[in-house]
Amino acid sequence: MLFSIRATTLQQPGTKAGSGSDESSGQQSRPTRVMVIGGDGYCGWATSLHLSKKGYEVAIVDNLVRRHFDDQLGLDSLTPIVSIHDRIRRWRSLTEKDINLYIGDVCDFEFLSEAFTSFKPDAVVHFGEQRSAPFSMIDRSRAVYTQQNNVLGTLNVLFAIKEYAEDCHLVKLGTMGEYGTPNIDIEEGYITITHNGRTDTLPYPKQASSFYHLSKVHDSNNIAFTCKAWGIRATDLNQGVVYGVRTAETEMHDELYNRFDYDGVFGTALNRFCVQAAVGHPLTVYGKGGQTRGYLDIRDTVQCVELAIANPAKRGEFRVFNQFTEQFSVNQLASLVTKAGEKLGIEVQTISVPNPRVEAEEHYYNAKHSKLIELGLEPHLLSDSLLDSLLNVAVQFKDRVDTKQIMPSVSWRKIGAKPKTVSA
Amino acid sequence: MLFSIRATTLQQPGTKAGSGSDESSGQQSRPTRVMVIGGDGYCGWATSLHLSKKGYEVAIVDNLVRRHFDDQLGLDSLTPIVSIHDRIRRWRSLTEKDINLYIGDVCDFEFLSEAFTSFKPDAVVHFGEQRSAPFSMIDRSRAVYTQQNNVLGTLNVLFAIKEYAEDCHLVKLGTMGEYGTPNIDIEEGYITITHNGRTDTLPYPKQASSFYHLSKVHDSNNIAFTCKAWGIRATDLNQGVVYGVRTAETEMHDELYNRFDYDGVFGTALNRFCVQAAVGHPLTVYGKGGQTRGYLDIRDTVQCVELAIANPAKRGEFRVFNQFTEQFSVNQLASLVTKAGEKLGIEVQTISVPNPRVEAEEHYYNAKHSKLIELGLEPHLLSDSLLDSLLNVAVQFKDRVDTKQIMPSVSWRKIGAKPKTVSA
Repeated sequence: MLFSIRATTLQQPGTKAGSGSDESSGQQSRPTRVMVIGGDGYCGWATSLHLSKKGYEVAIVDNLVRRHFDDQLGLDSLTPIVSIHDRIRRWRSLTEKDINLYIGDVCDFEFLSEAFTSFKPDAVVHFGEQRSAPFSMIDRSRAVYTQQNNVLGTLNVLFAIKEYAEDCHLVKLGTMGEYGTPNIDIEEGYITITHNGRTDTLPYPKQASSFYHLSKVHDSNNIAFTCKAWGIRATDLNQGVVYGVRTAETEMHDELYNRFDYDGVFGTALNRFCVQAAVGHPLTVYGKGGQTRGYLDIRDTVQCVELAIANPAKRGEFRVFNQFTEQFSVNQLASLVTKAGEKLGIEVQTISVPNPRVEAEEHYYNAKHSKLIELGLEPHLLSDSLLDSLLNVAVQFKDRVDTKQIMPSVSWRKIGAKPKTVSA
Repeated sequence: MLFSIRATTLQQPGTKAGSGSDESSGQQSRPTRVMVIGGDGYCGWATSLHLSKKGYEVAIVDNLVRRHFDDQLGLDSLTPIVSIHDRIRRWRSLTEKDINLYIGDVCDFEFLSEAFTSFKPDAVVHFGEQRSAPFSMIDRSRAVYTQQNNVLGTLNVLFAIKEYAEDCHLVKLGTMGEYGTPNIDIEEGYITITHNGRTDTLPYPKQASSFYHLSKVHDSNNIAFTCKAWGIRATDLNQGVVYGVRTAETEMHDELYNRFDYDGVFGTALNRFCVQAAVGHPLTVYGKGGQTRGYLDIRDTVQCVELAIANPAKRGEFRVFNQFTEQFSVNQLASLVTKAGEKLGIEVQTISVPNPRVEAEEHYYNAKHSKLIELGLEPHLLSDSLLDSLLNVAVQFKDRVDTKQIMPSVSWRKIGAKPKTVSA
């Protein structure tokens, strides 16, 4: 169904085509060539433009299946987005920077091999996974698809690095959801445990709560093993919930707009609340609303990825960064959106709806997130962004809102073995 | 390639066809109908016969791919084994007990659904996975196959239970190898951690060291989630290295013989040492030989599975038992086999070969294993079994040994993306 094309690449002045490795020291010299798998998606597109702007030679690898999901489920981005081909053409016309494009599926190893051997990446940023928890809980076939696509696709990426680019740095998007909500502080990837008089530093225990979140746990375990067995260098970015749509690059032209999902399947909590506020729909808090998570602005996502690439992991190192800037409960988010609405003259209501998920609705939550700050992350705080990068965008495009898509449509408990048929 | 057949089932007197559930109490009444997935394999065949002997109504579900691997890799069991069809016919003629047979693949959900709806299991014992670490490290395609087959097959089993037999108890074969070799005591599935003044009991951190072992970690995480989200009742048997070939049932007739693997891909350490001793080949210790693991006699495997079935987990409970009886280092095993050889008048040499695996060769190891003892397990100890159930079997069949298969053939570090071609 999917096919591969390759845009003609103009070599950028000042970049070199070969690998940026210096294996003798175990250090990587400045990486210049970055492959972004899933570069047509929400985080991937913003990251690709940011890296291109920063002077990296960028290749997007994407099978465009995210657009296909929208077609199948009858969903659409709030913001109008153009094709990946037009996006890249527009970027070139505005900046004279070329982005290489490989259309294909990382689960197809022959395709992935060709992409690796022709592009020769110094770093691979891997966003190329089915990234919606509700999507993974629609029915058996989507649950299986999610783990198959994510876990086996990542295995292929690891084998491609080992075979074709062994010094390449893997920057893998994980999720804070891998940790669940333990009753102790969440550390960044590892925890030192003293037990019966002995001490070891071990992978932080994971308690994921959807087939999607579980797929990321599986990936983390697989990657950690290959770092140890093969000397892969890897950074696992355990990302919080991303909000916002604008980055410096995507707002340069309306053909560079990023997607903005607000529906019950792909929309994240805060984006959905802003759209609900804009169209006069009550904010839908799931259950008690005490669910607390880490959040970050998409402008910080692109910063974090660039910081990880510019400061690569060592050979054999499996490094884990918790990638978020602030913690909020769902009730706190609802309250912030309500207050922001007041400033725009919008009256915002909040309702509690039955929680479609199986999760603690009141719990302890304290997750560490200092490693990216130490590398230089300068966070955008929600209090500063809510009006200018979220609510106003939702208001601007409110005529495009499909209110049928706002309510939760997927139940963690009611998922069945039989394919769930989507009908209008 | 594979197809489904169904043996005619004679209803056993005293068993009932329906589910043995009593949901109101959350307790399961005495389970009588057990589906053994992978029932034609090493542990699965011995378990199927043991359960049938004990009065359970047994159905074997198997795609026979283990026999196919032997064909492809040019391997064979030390002991001659007959077809699953002849095995079952022989069992019926000896005991008047019928074993139901479903030939097919649990990755094929349509097949699995039919097996569930027609057999109506009270318990499912899931051995139906690719179970060799070296096999998973041959090449990319076998690594991907292992995780695809194991993880997605188990997802299908979980969906089948939810859809067709929600009170059914899943007894899943995991491995002690999920834990790796931490520098602290290994607990049974969970560990209580006090950290920064707070305490929680969390899943024990996992550090698996092959794509096979990782697949079992992924399974454990997936199953734990479904117990919480759907109320699945599950027991994860983290099994040690199994040795021996004789059980009370398999020695009733030579058509009931179990398989006995000694090759570098499917053979486990102790079985391989006994075959090496029998044919005058030096025992091949990988590296320093300080690698310590839990071991158990296959007669204890079948006991443990029956104990788990007879004492089912509660609805929503994810229970983990460490299933082994004694710990040994590889050097200790070599020493025990050398001494046992002396008693049989065999002179046994030991050599160190380069370790094909990536693993600690000297490490702390102390793993708890009390839960199955508390349920009534009466262990067979290696010191009592080594001569009568291992070395003598190896000597009996030594003319069948293919000495080309004894040395390690798969390297953890040299695994490549390209398919490894097997040639004579």
